Amino acid sequence: MKPTIAIEYCPKCGWMLRAAYMAQELLTTFTDEISGVLLKPSETGGTYIITINEVQVFDRKEMGRFPEIKEVKQLVRDIVSPEKNLGHSDKSS
Amino acid sequence: MKPTIAIEYCPKCGWMLRAAYMAQELLTTFTDEISGVLLKPSETGGTYIITINEVQVFDRKEMGRFPEIKEVKQLVRDIVSPEKNLGHSDKSS
Repeated sequence: MKPTIAIEYCPKCGWMLRAAYMAQELLTTFTDEISGVLLKPSETGGTYIITINEVQVFDRKEMGRFPEIKEVKQLVRDIVSPEKNLGHSDKSS
Repeated sequence: MKPTIAIEYCPKCGWMLRAAYMAQELLTTFTDEISGVLLKPSETGGTYIITINEVQVFDRKEMGRFPEIKEVKQLVRDIVSPEKNLGHSDKSS
């Protein structure tokens, strides 16, 4: 069973576009490796949480910032496809 | 429990952008009424299937066409929020 990624975002904060953008990046990079990406409007303000199979891998409130897209791809890669090379998204900065 | 909508699309056909666009329309219109929208790359060519809580409401292969966005909103509204008025998306053509 391939993993499902969820992005829970605060719609009142205007973060749907950001969440949808990240979803599309992940769907493009991991097309064959993931079951899908779930976009989930949160009822709690300020939420931006990414989970893989319901395990949290990024929480904006904990980190005090949004993740970079490169970072999101690395987090997902490390769990769903550890041997995959992400090309320029694999450089550290 | 709010319903989850899934859009399963054929990535090889180049339909991710279309699925992501429809997901964002639904998330904007039904922010408080749905649990989320799942974008799901299909392994089968030509797939474009919309489900609500795993019940199929549109299948491109059955219909021989893509759904219009207005139609998608009406299908979702009829199930998740039957009394909701969709404004200009509620006119028949």
